[in-house]
Amino acid sequence: MEPLQLMVRMNLNAWDAQIKRASSFFNGLSDEELYQEIAPGKNRAIYLLGHLVAIHDGMLSLLGIGNRDYEQLDNAFVKSPDKAVEHLPEPKDLRAYWTNVNDILNRQFNSLLAEEWLHKHTAVSEADFEKEPHRNRLNVLISRTNHLAYHLGQLVLIKK
Amino acid sequence: MEPLQLMVRMNLNAWDAQIKRASSFFNGLSDEELYQEIAPGKNRAIYLLGHLVAIHDGMLSLLGIGNRDYEQLDNAFVKSPDKAVEHLPEPKDLRAYWTNVNDILNRQFNSLLAEEWLHKHTAVSEADFEKEPHRNRLNVLISRTNHLAYHLGQLVLIKK
Repeated sequence: MEPLQLMVRMNLNAWDAQIKRASSFFNGLSDEELYQEIAPGKNRAIYLLGHLVAIHDGMLSLLGIGNRDYEQLDNAFVKSPDKAVEHLPEPKDLRAYWTNVNDILNRQFNSLLAEEWLHKHTAVSEADFEKEPHRNRLNVLISRTNHLAYHLGQLVLIKK
Repeated sequence: MEPLQLMVRMNLNAWDAQIKRASSFFNGLSDEELYQEIAPGKNRAIYLLGHLVAIHDGMLSLLGIGNRDYEQLDNAFVKSPDKAVEHLPEPKDLRAYWTNVNDILNRQFNSLLAEEWLHKHTAVSEADFEKEPHRNRLNVLISRTNHLAYHLGQLVLIKK
């Protein structure tokens, strides 16, 4: 494998590993447990599930690799803190969204060539990108992987 | 910047960003608050501080870029769960270790060439590395960055 491909693959492996851990965690949580807070007065697991679906869905447009499916989740799970929005989607729906969005990302990720990961993401202008070439797709992947690890560290605190 | 260098730089930037966030978090915590649990019955902040120092210190030998300074922390902070070891180092000492180990890593990281990040780490044999070239230094960096993000997600739950 070429060094560049290898580096992309390693970052993709890290993403996959976090997705696998999170999926296995959510699968092991009952619908009831999804409504538990990670710590007293903090976010509930269901909020973090919706939050992660919305943020991952947003990667499709941010990376310029697809259209968003779940933009309607942004209001309850990105723009608002937990418990600010009364009616949340059902656990079974959020679970299906989680699987679906990560499957779509996985397919798109694996269709990109190593060099294409260094293309600019859609939230940076051509002019800025010329000065800041690190504002590319791979950077989004790296930062979203850390975002997922961050929330996973919180989720495992839920008492099962 | 060459594509390979750029990819290494992006992973280093992600590491730096997490270190900065964690340092700023620990600096904002009083010694007393360090003894608080992240959630009822869970790890205390001081345990996670010692844990992160020990794991980061271990990167020096794992990456083959230096000798460990704080191997004596492994017993209380890696091999044992929190509260299993009665006498922990003082907060002021752990804070100094944290700064020191990350400074050393930072210097060593920045002295490596992009290609050198793809060299094998010291916990894999030459034979295995030939079959699994991703078991290299960069992979350790990526996985330790996610490890730090994971615990940072927990630390921010501390009530200040």
